[in-house]
Amino acid sequence: MQLGLVGLGKMGFNMRERLRAGGHEVIGFDPRPEVSDVPSLAALAEALPAPRMVWVMVPSGEVTRQTIAELAGVLESGDLVIDGGNSRYTEDGRHAELLGEKGISFIDAGVSGGIWGLTEGYGLMVGGSDEDIARAMPIFDTLRPAGDPADGFVHAGPVGAGHFTKMVHNGVEYALMTAYAEGYEMLAAEDLVRDPQAVYQAWTNGTVVRSWLQQLLAKALKEDPDLANITGYTDDSGEGRWTVEEAIRLRVPVPGIAASLFARFLSRQDDSPTMKAVAALRNQFGGHAVQRISESG
Amino acid sequence: MQLGLVGLGKMGFNMRERLRAGGHEVIGFDPRPEVSDVPSLAALAEALPAPRMVWVMVPSGEVTRQTIAELAGVLESGDLVIDGGNSRYTEDGRHAELLGEKGISFIDAGVSGGIWGLTEGYGLMVGGSDEDIARAMPIFDTLRPAGDPADGFVHAGPVGAGHFTKMVHNGVEYALMTAYAEGYEMLAAEDLVRDPQAVYQAWTNGTVVRSWLQQLLAKALKEDPDLANITGYTDDSGEGRWTVEEAIRLRVPVPGIAASLFARFLSRQDDSPTMKAVAALRNQFGGHAVQRISESG
Amino acid sequence: MQLGLVGLGKMGFNMRERLRAGGHEVIGFDPRPEVSDVPSLAALAEALPAPRMVWVMVPSGEVTRQTIAELAGVLESGDLVIDGGNSRYTEDGRHAELLGEKGISFIDAGVSGGIWGLTEGYGLMVGGSDEDIARAMPIFDTLRPAGDPADGFVHAGPVGAGHFTKMVHNGVEYALMTAYAEGYEMLAAEDLVRDPQAVYQAWTNGTVVRSWLQQLLAKALKEDPDLANITGYTDDSGEGRWTVEEAIRLRVPVPGIAASLFARFLSRQDDSPTMKAVAALRNQFGGHAVQRISESG
Amino acid sequence: MQLGLVGLGKMGFNMRERLRAGGHEVIGFDPRPEVSDVPSLAALAEALPAPRMVWVMVPSGEVTRQTIAELAGVLESGDLVIDGGNSRYTEDGRHAELLGEKGISFIDAGVSGGIWGLTEGYGLMVGGSDEDIARAMPIFDTLRPAGDPADGFVHAGPVGAGHFTKMVHNGVEYALMTAYAEGYEMLAAEDLVRDPQAVYQAWTNGTVVRSWLQQLLAKALKEDPDLANITGYTDDSGEGRWTVEEAIRLRVPVPGIAASLFARFLSRQDDSPTMKAVAALRNQFGGHAVQRISESG
Repeated sequence: MQLGLVGLGKMGFNMRERLRAGGHEVIGFDPRPEVSDVPSLAALAEALPAPRMVWVMVPSGEVTRQTIAELAGVLESGDLVIDGGNSRYTEDGRHAELLGEKGISFIDAGVSGGIWGLTEGYGLMVGGSDEDIARAMPIFDTLRPAGDPADGFVHAGPVGAGHFTKMVHNGVEYALMTAYAEGYEMLAAEDLVRDPQAVYQAWTNGTVVRSWLQQLLAKALKEDPDLANITGYTDDSGEGRWTVEEAIRLRVPVPGIAASLFARFLSRQDDSPTMKAVAALRNQFGGHAVQRISESG
Repeated sequence: MQLGLVGLGKMGFNMRERLRAGGHEVIGFDPRPEVSDVPSLAALAEALPAPRMVWVMVPSGEVTRQTIAELAGVLESGDLVIDGGNSRYTEDGRHAELLGEKGISFIDAGVSGGIWGLTEGYGLMVGGSDEDIARAMPIFDTLRPAGDPADGFVHAGPVGAGHFTKMVHNGVEYALMTAYAEGYEMLAAEDLVRDPQAVYQAWTNGTVVRSWLQQLLAKALKEDPDLANITGYTDDSGEGRWTVEEAIRLRVPVPGIAASLFARFLSRQDDSPTMKAVAALRNQFGGHAVQRISESG
Repeated sequence: MQLGLVGLGKMGFNMRERLRAGGHEVIGFDPRPEVSDVPSLAALAEALPAPRMVWVMVPSGEVTRQTIAELAGVLESGDLVIDGGNSRYTEDGRHAELLGEKGISFIDAGVSGGIWGLTEGYGLMVGGSDEDIARAMPIFDTLRPAGDPADGFVHAGPVGAGHFTKMVHNGVEYALMTAYAEGYEMLAAEDLVRDPQAVYQAWTNGTVVRSWLQQLLAKALKEDPDLANITGYTDDSGEGRWTVEEAIRLRVPVPGIAASLFARFLSRQDDSPTMKAVAALRNQFGGHAVQRISESG
Repeated sequence: MQLGLVGLGKMGFNMRERLRAGGHEVIGFDPRPEVSDVPSLAALAEALPAPRMVWVMVPSGEVTRQTIAELAGVLESGDLVIDGGNSRYTEDGRHAELLGEKGISFIDAGVSGGIWGLTEGYGLMVGGSDEDIARAMPIFDTLRPAGDPADGFVHAGPVGAGHFTKMVHNGVEYALMTAYAEGYEMLAAEDLVRDPQAVYQAWTNGTVVRSWLQQLLAKALKEDPDLANITGYTDDSGEGRWTVEEAIRLRVPVPGIAASLFARFLSRQDDSPTMKAVAALRNQFGGHAVQRISESG
């Protein structure tokens, strides 16, 4: 079928490839002319036959909000917009309403798989009405991995459910990464263990902990066995923060996910103000030696 | 080759099956006559041609210690004992020494895979000398999963390294389980999400979080979608506790693994003394309402 | 000086007492006629000479919002409203704006001390303009504890700073309570320790951990040595949740405060869905015994 | 009464002062001749009338073990040794046994108060027999703070109970320090708050969070408002590690104390191997930008 695709970055570019390989006619728009098929969102709307379907794959937050507002201006009643970016699910209601005023339908789609999705397919978690989901199903069927449709695709619920589910997916992902990373640090710290990389390689088959992330860590350690070429500085994309915030709203205790999030915050601090305060306090009552700035490397 | 196998419980029984299917001649001993091939450890030693190889697959701690002490009595110089149970790695040195005094070699082997190992193979992490490992390799090759030997098997280091690596494996496993479980609780708490099971099913393919444990949780939720037939009471086998203890020794921060361990402790308390103290304290300074025993269900 | 006081609950009632004892003329309003000095907010406004000062001490959220909206209707330009409740600091800007449109000033005041404030004084953290704070200072001076004004009172910053500071105060309080409670549980769990209450009593003097909360726990344990008459069920007033949310916004890692918050959530669950999922998962791969509903309690 | 005091470091030196001021005759021994009253342990034993009482105040571990072994050689049946250092309580049984073989009694004493104990008195938690405790009571009465004996002193139980209680005290102390430090970091991170020091000063009176540690942090912030002259590098004395280890043995969940301990470990790492692994992993699946060593400051 025909699809407009807004945003041809790391994810959108690959998705266009996969969709075209699956027999769909994709018209992509991106502000960078060298990758864009049309010069503007208006041109995109013109190039698509009504009723149109447009997939938005741009950074979450302001850029997504602007894109959807602009689409509300160039699309028509009966069209369908899918937000496949990492929007916070709390934005979905507003977007559905804004578009709904023009008679335009809305689906929120969480997309997992990163750069590997092009070849392996993308895990999809979508929210919207049964009717809208059915209409977009040919697109979802091409994007999702081969195999049983129930594996790799879920219609999670009404508008918002797709992004909520994707947010939880990323929260879980944070905690999984921390779990493997803590294991790595322990193996690397113990002299008995000759080669943590070999252990991570061995864990890829037959063990209880085997997983795709586990394989990736084995691969990363093969490329850089002591992780000598990388710092621990780690950004977060927002979904980890939102997961903990939503957990608080829902009164769900998430010590594992929260620990992972805080570890990322900490990784970006030169020196922890919390620990400076602990050191200062310790010095007050115990006369414990503290490391003065001048002494530290 | 020929192998003595001591302990024919859930794990040992299946391993005997897999080894026999792989062409080895296995003589199993277990105190339960209905599954045992010989009536005693002495009979086991007699039935095996020297130099013997005996795999011990019994509960860690006292039972393993006794078994190895008895084997030291019935085996001879040149024989080899492999402890495949979940012994704490700190026991391995003593066992190696005890057996070494008789000229008997020792390998510690961490075995992962649970009840699925029979058909899929067991992930193996072993510690010992190159010579001893080479000698037992035909056994390891049958037990490990099919595929590249580096996937599913690792000679982690000298005696102790196998069990240390398996201990870390289990610590990581604790944190992975908690990560998936926290995600489940969030999905179950949010009304937008129609069916957490369908989400877990969809995550099995194409997503970043896909894993063997993730598939198992999808399966568990299929069998009991609301987990209505199970309580949260969760034992621990010892390896989670040891992992945190060793992390402390190594000065490795493991907030994720520790959170998982503490959650298990908490799951076994009728009411948390810590939270009773918090409630009592809160009552003291704020006149906050507390739940008296008589009011609580 | 003359002050209107809206809300004569646990806190407001005592504050009226303390202010009157300090020589101020306080006119209190409360919907319960038996404690109220005037029948309505309008009557309160009439009874006070302009420019008026009105302290709001009602539950945070909807009740505070309504009260301030009504005050905006009955007060006049030049009057001053102080919100002394536990409002989230993010509300303060809106309240200041709403009142500001009528020329009414606004101060946000965090008040600590609970039921003990009547006799010992209240710790005060206020936000607003220098001018407004100066004007209300006689009231603050009576409410705060005796002693150096810098101990027990702080003008933390512009509007919002008072409630932000009080929110952090309560977040810290959560973590302090958890710290003492964890210590109690350990002492109670160890057979060597004859009487945890005696330990907590002894800690009240000379130790590094002595504090007001520590004294209160000693007192609570004296009244109920085994905490036999209390359950661990513990509510939260909102400020713990807000503290973690604001920490996330500020990218400040707060593992201690978050652990305390999550423990409260957990204390209110009959059975943890997270741990049910862990138990279910464990059962899948290991054939571990799980506690079926029928077996438990 | 007469007392031998072994170890005249930061703690022992002050304790000798306080005991002498209290009318006791103290003979101190220290390897540093400039502070020692006698040249050797043997000389100390000779200088004291039988039955002797000797207080050991030396670093825990090897030094304490050696000192007690030497005392077993120079003391006689009927004498009494008190270990007032920060020994792990698991050592106490062995020391009691070693000394008991010679008829020498043993008390373990946890001593809190740091450098302030000289003037304010030391919080004492002791373990031993009723008879031995009664015999040493004049010493305890001088060391403890003035006031009710039940505040500042506890006979916690048999040998071992004193050090166990002190260990828990220090574990609680870790978590308290983290609580205050997290609060400081939040106040320092929020622009609305003009001066975190002023807030910590104000919290010293009337608030729920007031405590001795809280006062010390206010003092530390007064001396160095931005903690500009201190790094977050923070050692640990052992008792925090032991507390978490014992909590694991007792199956007591201690998320607050453990978080504090792990934060100290982390403060001593140049770059976290865990976070390097997370960053490496993230790079694998997402093509996320990671900070290469060459880019980082």
